[in-house]
Amino acid sequence: MNYSERYLQTRARTESICYPLKTEDYVVQPIEDVSPPKWHLGHTTWFFETFILKPFLPGYNEYDVNYNYVFNSYYETIGSRVIRTDRGNLSRPSVEDIYNYRKHVDNAMLQLLQTSISEKIKELVLLGFNHEEQHQELLFTDIKYILGHNPLFPKYSEDAELGLKIPSGKNSMATIQEGIYEIGHKGDGFCFDNELGRHKYHLQGFHIAKDLVTNGEFLDFLNDGGYTSHQYWHAEGLNWVKTNNIQAPLYWHKIEGAWYHYTLGGLKPIPMDEALCHISFYEAAAYAAWKGMRLPTEFEWEVAASTFEWGHRWEWTNSAYLPYPGFMRAPGAVGEYNGKFMINQMVLRGASECTSPAHSRASYRNFFHPHLRWQFTGIRLAL
Amino acid sequence: MNYSERYLQTRARTESICYPLKTEDYVVQPIEDVSPPKWHLGHTTWFFETFILKPFLPGYNEYDVNYNYVFNSYYETIGSRVIRTDRGNLSRPSVEDIYNYRKHVDNAMLQLLQTSISEKIKELVLLGFNHEEQHQELLFTDIKYILGHNPLFPKYSEDAELGLKIPSGKNSMATIQEGIYEIGHKGDGFCFDNELGRHKYHLQGFHIAKDLVTNGEFLDFLNDGGYTSHQYWHAEGLNWVKTNNIQAPLYWHKIEGAWYHYTLGGLKPIPMDEALCHISFYEAAAYAAWKGMRLPTEFEWEVAASTFEWGHRWEWTNSAYLPYPGFMRAPGAVGEYNGKFMINQMVLRGASECTSPAHSRASYRNFFHPHLRWQFTGIRLAL
Amino acid sequence: MNYSERYLQTRARTESICYPLKTEDYVVQPIEDVSPPKWHLGHTTWFFETFILKPFLPGYNEYDVNYNYVFNSYYETIGSRVIRTDRGNLSRPSVEDIYNYRKHVDNAMLQLLQTSISEKIKELVLLGFNHEEQHQELLFTDIKYILGHNPLFPKYSEDAELGLKIPSGKNSMATIQEGIYEIGHKGDGFCFDNELGRHKYHLQGFHIAKDLVTNGEFLDFLNDGGYTSHQYWHAEGLNWVKTNNIQAPLYWHKIEGAWYHYTLGGLKPIPMDEALCHISFYEAAAYAAWKGMRLPTEFEWEVAASTFEWGHRWEWTNSAYLPYPGFMRAPGAVGEYNGKFMINQMVLRGASECTSPAHSRASYRNFFHPHLRWQFTGIRLAL
Amino acid sequence: MNYSERYLQTRARTESICYPLKTEDYVVQPIEDVSPPKWHLGHTTWFFETFILKPFLPGYNEYDVNYNYVFNSYYETIGSRVIRTDRGNLSRPSVEDIYNYRKHVDNAMLQLLQTSISEKIKELVLLGFNHEEQHQELLFTDIKYILGHNPLFPKYSEDAELGLKIPSGKNSMATIQEGIYEIGHKGDGFCFDNELGRHKYHLQGFHIAKDLVTNGEFLDFLNDGGYTSHQYWHAEGLNWVKTNNIQAPLYWHKIEGAWYHYTLGGLKPIPMDEALCHISFYEAAAYAAWKGMRLPTEFEWEVAASTFEWGHRWEWTNSAYLPYPGFMRAPGAVGEYNGKFMINQMVLRGASECTSPAHSRASYRNFFHPHLRWQFTGIRLAL
Repeated sequence: MNYSERYLQTRARTESICYPLKTEDYVVQPIEDVSPPKWHLGHTTWFFETFILKPFLPGYNEYDVNYNYVFNSYYETIGSRVIRTDRGNLSRPSVEDIYNYRKHVDNAMLQLLQTSISEKIKELVLLGFNHEEQHQELLFTDIKYILGHNPLFPKYSEDAELGLKIPSGKNSMATIQEGIYEIGHKGDGFCFDNELGRHKYHLQGFHIAKDLVTNGEFLDFLNDGGYTSHQYWHAEGLNWVKTNNIQAPLYWHKIEGAWYHYTLGGLKPIPMDEALCHISFYEAAAYAAWKGMRLPTEFEWEVAASTFEWGHRWEWTNSAYLPYPGFMRAPGAVGEYNGKFMINQMVLRGASECTSPAHSRASYRNFFHPHLRWQFTGIRLAL
Repeated sequence: MNYSERYLQTRARTESICYPLKTEDYVVQPIEDVSPPKWHLGHTTWFFETFILKPFLPGYNEYDVNYNYVFNSYYETIGSRVIRTDRGNLSRPSVEDIYNYRKHVDNAMLQLLQTSISEKIKELVLLGFNHEEQHQELLFTDIKYILGHNPLFPKYSEDAELGLKIPSGKNSMATIQEGIYEIGHKGDGFCFDNELGRHKYHLQGFHIAKDLVTNGEFLDFLNDGGYTSHQYWHAEGLNWVKTNNIQAPLYWHKIEGAWYHYTLGGLKPIPMDEALCHISFYEAAAYAAWKGMRLPTEFEWEVAASTFEWGHRWEWTNSAYLPYPGFMRAPGAVGEYNGKFMINQMVLRGASECTSPAHSRASYRNFFHPHLRWQFTGIRLAL
Repeated sequence: MNYSERYLQTRARTESICYPLKTEDYVVQPIEDVSPPKWHLGHTTWFFETFILKPFLPGYNEYDVNYNYVFNSYYETIGSRVIRTDRGNLSRPSVEDIYNYRKHVDNAMLQLLQTSISEKIKELVLLGFNHEEQHQELLFTDIKYILGHNPLFPKYSEDAELGLKIPSGKNSMATIQEGIYEIGHKGDGFCFDNELGRHKYHLQGFHIAKDLVTNGEFLDFLNDGGYTSHQYWHAEGLNWVKTNNIQAPLYWHKIEGAWYHYTLGGLKPIPMDEALCHISFYEAAAYAAWKGMRLPTEFEWEVAASTFEWGHRWEWTNSAYLPYPGFMRAPGAVGEYNGKFMINQMVLRGASECTSPAHSRASYRNFFHPHLRWQFTGIRLAL
Repeated sequence: MNYSERYLQTRARTESICYPLKTEDYVVQPIEDVSPPKWHLGHTTWFFETFILKPFLPGYNEYDVNYNYVFNSYYETIGSRVIRTDRGNLSRPSVEDIYNYRKHVDNAMLQLLQTSISEKIKELVLLGFNHEEQHQELLFTDIKYILGHNPLFPKYSEDAELGLKIPSGKNSMATIQEGIYEIGHKGDGFCFDNELGRHKYHLQGFHIAKDLVTNGEFLDFLNDGGYTSHQYWHAEGLNWVKTNNIQAPLYWHKIEGAWYHYTLGGLKPIPMDEALCHISFYEAAAYAAWKGMRLPTEFEWEVAASTFEWGHRWEWTNSAYLPYPGFMRAPGAVGEYNGKFMINQMVLRGASECTSPAHSRASYRNFFHPHLRWQFTGIRLAL
């Protein structure tokens, strides 16, 4: 596929995700971690405008100089920005304005992509695709949060979010032998800088579950008093449970004695044989401790990934998000992409049903703070 | 005017205030004190539905039982409600839904008002009118806050908010003699329960300014270091200044050495001979101390009101919001209207350019916490 | 009594209040409103040194220039100070250092007082006595808080804090006729600036209870679900109850089904026929509403004070702390004494068992924020 | 050395650290991370009483059942405890009471240690020694914080805290070859559970500095605008700098143009050729980035430790505190020692001048949150 085609497809997919929304749904930001959908639409556009069009398309006419302030996410190099908690307070630019902004930038990008572009530009365009695809997943998770925390529980789409049924002959484990393995991205395809620096890693032998933990299995933990049994928890996790009065995974509701969860298709009874979703690292680690097991490290996961099916949940690992050997930040704003977040976050491996296809590879390193639950997270056990 | 006519006019005026808004403007809540315009539209409707239609219109069909939860403001008697800081996180009901809700309730109200209604219902309908008119003023102040805190400074309407020019022969004072005066609502017209209990009040003789303080006069205070001169401030006021880094009235911006302020007509140079607006009680009291004067009490204001022109600014008084002799809360939810706020708030007298006409009377008692500035507040000095 | 004698007696009484303390008790500050006893000892000394010795005693040798920073309470005129929440973090100056500081200042003060002092100095010395006497009461209330919030419940003194038994023929009311009364300090004795400006005040006729509310009466309110019945509460009061999980007056503990309270004499069963103590304005107002009555205004209280016995509890009134007609702050630091606190506080009238004798007069205006409970506060009803 | 002797020496060393303190210094807690010295004295005693005397000494007479509540630090298994921020609010038990408590427990411990004790008890006694030695270091760091944040800057001891002079022929690097190394505690001596599980680890080749970074070198970073250059910082680090207005290492003060730092010997000019101290992980990582280098991992550090002198500063590594392969929490309260903190903390290697001798070994893993600075932390660079 050439760059123009992929550009069009990527941009169209973003807009199709927003198609079922009402204008009002584009605007709100119920918690700091969630961004308004219209912000995602504008920010991904600003990325192409700022890093590609303004430096590389001669005569490019900036759409609105103020948008730089509104749609910068965290790039300190580029200048001041609307602080993250304020995004949901901005009614303007309107949704219509932002779609016009997208058209303006799309036209200019297509003009540029029809010329013979340098390797440097190709690299940035590719980064732009991957950046927008990451925001496509965030659109799903943020829309779910926005609708799922509305007291009216509106549906996004009737047939959205089919769960992953775990086969009944489950609970079997794969075994990996002690040895030296290679970790990190291999080959020529695109990857993020945090996956680079393929290097040797020595692993002890270990076992890893072939299947994800189900809703029903987690309910056993809950019913066994798991949330109030301090011995299974990290001290910070227990504090998080108490401070936020956590009693179940995100989106779970007990209504007249039965368990329901909010899905993009509305409020539904929880299917107990499907893969658990929307738990924090703290809950994942506590569940593993309750089972007398543990979470895998990201290195174990990557080595063992060929032995199981994955791609339905982002899976918490017990690895902190840290640089691989030889990692260096790129100079300039693009270098702010990954390295500056390498503290106090945990690595997730895998992918989810909402992940863009180009983001499913065994070396992919996702990362979130340990208390966050609004991604499609799950648990795979190791021993 | 009969009840049906006034009902239609009141409801239409509310909607006409919202006419210049984009859908997105209806949704956001930048600070706790400001409510999203769509919430005002729904809440005033919920008031008629809850206190009049449900108890008094036989066979009335409630529009949506969940709306009770969404649009209750603070009536504990009626049940749980969306907490105030969460209002801006609700994308649904949509603006269209809420206009439909208004139509549904309007139809039922007109049906009821065409029958012969009891005195009790008349009293509640009148309260409903006055309640909605109060929210009309809040719509103006909240819309101003929403647009005025957007980095794009969008205009609400080109010709909105013409300032009050203070005549040049100003700074003259009216003199009121010591004596016993009557305070409180007089006559048969509508008033709120907090104005009732007309009673004798002994006043010392005093002087009161015939004109409001201008922007230019306040700028003298600012340029004289007024914001950092502790001797003019209440201790809590000084703390508020420091904590919030207050350096000028709300909506004032110094741009390349010149002072601008945001108005509903956009960002404009500050006219120095117009009445000052958007200051807190703390700033009003500090300004008065800097002038060697003071704010009037609400009793002084009411007695002197016939000696000056008023109605352009809500004017801070040095009276705390407390009950008049004989005040008793009405039983039930309607009784929650005023009495339960009689602590830690200061009384404002007068009215503003955004006040509904029926809310301009000398006995009217408005009240806000002393740090609030988003109302059209001003200063009148006394001695 | 001459000035030297009164100086010695005042200073000695302060130290005698601290006599039962251990060194450690002098140091801590469990909440912002409570100050460490050693701070009170130093601050009252700093007051004499700063306002009298340094300006008026030629050749006075300042004890330690750093103490100005440590012991300034809130006098902005005098310069920077340790913020109030940090007082409990200071282990130095030590208790011994502070007693030496007291001796140093006492010697100099006695030297000054044996000379012929001007009227200006006399006025300041008198203010110094009254200031220290106010801190004597605060020493009692702060010591009670420090010991009463220690899990070991140590006693201050075996025989401290004998309760006020309410006579059994109680619940009778005094009646005051409508009329014009005089309010404010009368005569030549010392008073604070906030009591001055004796002025006429018109009162409606009213009834006021001859006795204070008892522990047993308040327990009836509590047992009737008073703390969770929103209709009796100010909105801010209800919010305070919920946020702080308030379920009873301060120092009350339910232990194995029986009610105890901490007193300076230790943890003891609550005597139900004694005057209630340690309630906030919010609780006082809610109790009154539950009884179908109200709190008196400070004007009613002052006029009626001759008709009942008072002096055992500071009694919450329904008056905000505001200036009397003609009130002006004195220039300089001494002027910061009262006026700058005239916002968001409620007036208490009366006195408590811990009040210094010179502070019991009918015109005395005490004031606290409505949520505070660590003073010896009580309830007198009006109608 | 036998157990009785080591017991006596350990306990005596703790008390000797407190010898220069005044009673008041034992009581305060200026920030949550710092504990009052008297709490350390009581808590280390409570550890022996709770885990050894109560279960293993027949007929042991518990000193005071309430002390369990006061001196439990974080052992959820043992029951409720005074929350950490409240420790500085407790004036009782007094310092004298706590020394009596120590004597009571010491007598019982010596009685027990003179009998023939089981392996299980030996293990717990050894843990008790190491636990108390950890608190000895915390006593130094907490005392420094308490005195160093007092506006009078009192000295702990004239000759305390001699700095480490860095030799002038410095800045040389040791080189370690790529290969498989062994990580974790080796041999029979005592170690904590987090050091166990010696395992193979593959390392890339790397260079590591033989000397620590000096005050003068860090001042170059500061003078070069390092604290405001976002490109060197983690996003959370930059936020920490801005929120807390960080402009220099802890205890540094610029006075009339010259740099001073508070030491246990008082306020002194900063010796520029001595090892830098009291910086956060964020500052360490930003400094390394400014130098175009990085911090070593804990694995690199352990492997390279034989090539340089260490033991003067706890050295921040770029490794998160996570379990070694095979780590399992011990059951019961003792198992709460380490494992539950393995989230959101970074590993420090080395030791400091205040570290007890038994706590200097190459496999020792210290850990703190990345913003903390009150330990004697420093920087060693790697490449």
